[in-house]
Amino acid sequence: MRILVLGGDGYLGWPTAMHLSQRGHEVAVLDNMARRAWDFEFGAESLVPILSLQERVMCWKSLAGKDIAVYVGDLTDYDFFEPVIREFKPEAMVHYGEQRAAPYSMIDRKHAVFTQVNNIVGNMNVLYAIAEHVPDCHLVKLGTMGEYGTPNIDIEEGFITITHKGRTDRLPYPKQPGSFYHLSKVHDSHNIMFCCRIWGVRATDLNQGVVYGADTDEILMDECLRTRFDYDGVFGTVLNRFLVQAVAGEPLTVYGKGGQTRGFLDIRDTLACVELAIMNPADRGEYRVFNQFTEQFSVMDLAKAVQEAGKEIGLSVTIDHLPNPRVELEQHYYNAINTNLLDLGLQPHYLNETLLESVIHVVQQYKHRINAT
Amino acid sequence: MRILVLGGDGYLGWPTAMHLSQRGHEVAVLDNMARRAWDFEFGAESLVPILSLQERVMCWKSLAGKDIAVYVGDLTDYDFFEPVIREFKPEAMVHYGEQRAAPYSMIDRKHAVFTQVNNIVGNMNVLYAIAEHVPDCHLVKLGTMGEYGTPNIDIEEGFITITHKGRTDRLPYPKQPGSFYHLSKVHDSHNIMFCCRIWGVRATDLNQGVVYGADTDEILMDECLRTRFDYDGVFGTVLNRFLVQAVAGEPLTVYGKGGQTRGFLDIRDTLACVELAIMNPADRGEYRVFNQFTEQFSVMDLAKAVQEAGKEIGLSVTIDHLPNPRVELEQHYYNAINTNLLDLGLQPHYLNETLLESVIHVVQQYKHRINAT
Repeated sequence: MRILVLGGDGYLGWPTAMHLSQRGHEVAVLDNMARRAWDFEFGAESLVPILSLQERVMCWKSLAGKDIAVYVGDLTDYDFFEPVIREFKPEAMVHYGEQRAAPYSMIDRKHAVFTQVNNIVGNMNVLYAIAEHVPDCHLVKLGTMGEYGTPNIDIEEGFITITHKGRTDRLPYPKQPGSFYHLSKVHDSHNIMFCCRIWGVRATDLNQGVVYGADTDEILMDECLRTRFDYDGVFGTVLNRFLVQAVAGEPLTVYGKGGQTRGFLDIRDTLACVELAIMNPADRGEYRVFNQFTEQFSVMDLAKAVQEAGKEIGLSVTIDHLPNPRVELEQHYYNAINTNLLDLGLQPHYLNETLLESVIHVVQQYKHRINAT
Repeated sequence: MRILVLGGDGYLGWPTAMHLSQRGHEVAVLDNMARRAWDFEFGAESLVPILSLQERVMCWKSLAGKDIAVYVGDLTDYDFFEPVIREFKPEAMVHYGEQRAAPYSMIDRKHAVFTQVNNIVGNMNVLYAIAEHVPDCHLVKLGTMGEYGTPNIDIEEGFITITHKGRTDRLPYPKQPGSFYHLSKVHDSHNIMFCCRIWGVRATDLNQGVVYGADTDEILMDECLRTRFDYDGVFGTVLNRFLVQAVAGEPLTVYGKGGQTRGFLDIRDTLACVELAIMNPADRGEYRVFNQFTEQFSVMDLAKAVQEAGKEIGLSVTIDHLPNPRVELEQHYYNAINTNLLDLGLQPHYLNETLLESVIHVVQQYKHRINAT
C-alpha cells in the first residue's frame, strides 16, 4: 500500500515509517522539520542523538534495502502539499504532522495561536487534498486521549449513546480538553467528522495516550536509526522525564499529589495500532475513533514504578511533590474504554520492570548528554 | 457600563450598539469593514442602503445626543486590538466580529480556512485581552444554534446531564455542526469554556437562531440609522430571502422538501437578549450558554407564512422546490430548549403577519434595488 506519513521526522513518525516500510508498504515521509527548530527555541535537545531525516533514510536503505521517499515542506502550505498528494497518490495517510506539546501551546498568546492555526489549517489541507485528489485514501489521524479531559463517567471511544427525556441518539462524546494544544485536536476531530459526513472521507481518529519507550524492532537494527527521546519541560512526557531524572540522580518531580490518571502505551504498540488501523480501514464516509492506550496509571504509580526499577539496578530514586502549575484535578475518576484496537488484534506490551530497565539503559548510555532542567 | 461591540458595523452589531447607547451605556464599536468588502467580492449589496459606520455614528449623535466611539481594525491583529482594550477598558464585550455565513465558508478551501482562522484567532485574541487587561470583563459571545446540528434528542442549553453505566456527570452538549463556519463556532465555544475554567473568564455564549426583521426602535428614529438587509445567496438568511422573492414576484426557493427545522427570532429580540445577558452577567469563571431563539419553524412553515402575508397585501406568491445542494436531513426531529433567556425576562416578539407585512413594506420601498439572484 502507498502510505504517506505526515510528521515523519518525529518521535513516532520516523519509527512508524520504518515499521510500515519493513512490512512491505511503499512509504513516503513528509515533514517541515519544525520539531527540530523548536529544540533550538529552548536550547533543548533529544537525549538520544539522531541523524538528519535524509541520513536516516539512507541508513534505512542500506540496512533494510528499502526506499522511503522524503518530502520536506509545510502542511499548512497547500501550494507545497497539493503537488505531493498528486504525485504520491497515497492510499493511506498517517497524520502526526502537528504541534503536539500542551506546555508549548500554553507559553503565551503567540504560541497558543500558532498551535491552533498550524494544527487546524494543516489538517484542513489534508482533508481537502483527500477530497480533491485521493477520495478513497484512508486518513489515520493522531488525536489524543486528552481530548476527553476527566469526566466523571466512563470515557467511550469517540461516541456515546445518550438516552434523554425518552429519546435516544448516538452522539459525539463530550470533550473537555485541558490546553490550547488539546483543544486543537478537538477542533480537528470535529472538522474530520464533518468531512466524512459531507464528502465521504474515510477516517480513523486515534485518541492516543502518553507514549513511552525508545526501542522498536527497526530501531534496534542500528544506532543510526534512533528516534528522538525528549525529556525537557516542554516536549518531554512524564515517564521519559522520570527515567532521565532517575539516571541523573535527581528527584522525580510530581505535580501536587500525583493522582492525575491517564492512559499510556509502549512506542511499539503505537506502531502496531497504526498498522492495525491501516490494514482494517474505515469505510467511505465513516468517522471512527479508537482510544489508543493499553494501561491507565496515575503519575504517582509511574513515579513508584521508576523508583522500584531503579532500586533493582542500584539507583536510589527519591520523589518530590511540587506545586501544580496546571488547573487540573489531582484526584478524579478515570476509566476509559479501549476495546476497539484489542478487538482488531492488538497484543499489548504492558509496562513492566524489564521495559523500564531497558529504557534506563538507553538513558544511561547517553547520561553525559543530560542537561539540568 | 462601558461596552465594546465587536463587529459593530454589521447587521446586528450596529443596532445593538445603538440600543445599548440609548439605554445609557458608554458604547464603542470595533469593526474591520470585512462584511462590506465581502459584498464587493460577489457584487452583492444590502437591499436597504446604509451609510458608512462613521456617518451612522454622527447621525446617531445628532439624533440621540449620544457618542459612540469607533475603532477600525482587525481583531486578528493583536497589535491593533490590545491597545483598544487598554484604552477603552470594557466592562462587557459583545462579540459579533466573525465571518458568519455558512455558504461563504463552503465556497472552497481558501474560504473554509479563512473562516476558521479568522474566527478562532479573533476569539482567542479576545480571550487573551480579557485575561491580560480586563479580567472582570464579561464576554457576550455570539454562537449559533447550528453548533448542535439536528440530534435525535432534545437540544439543551450548552450542557447535558448524562447518566452512563451507573455514573452521572454534567457535560458539554455534543456538537454536530453542518459547515466550516458552524464548526468555527464550536471551536470558539470549546476555547472559551477552557479559558473560563483556567483563567476565571466570565462568558455567556449566545447560541442564536436565524434572525429576521429590519426595524428596531432606534432604526425607526431615522432612515440614516438603517442596518443592512441581506438577501443574496451567500449572506442572505432564509426569511429575508423569501420576503425579497415575494416582492420581486419570483417563486420562493425551498431546498428539497423544506422540512429542515431551525430556531428563529426577531432582530428586536436579539437586542433584548444581548442586553439581558449584559445586565445579568456570568460569574467569574462561569461559562454559560443561552439558546437564543423564540420559535421553531421548518423552511416550509416560513414559505407558507410569507405566501399568506403576501396574499393579504395583494401579492401572488408561489413556491419552488429545488434540489438540495447541502448534505442535511430534510425531515428530522428538532426540539431545542430556550428557557434561560425567558427566565431572565425576555418578552418575545413572535413572528406574525403584522411583522411580515412591515418587512415587506421595507422591501417594497427598495424594490428597485433588488438584483436577480
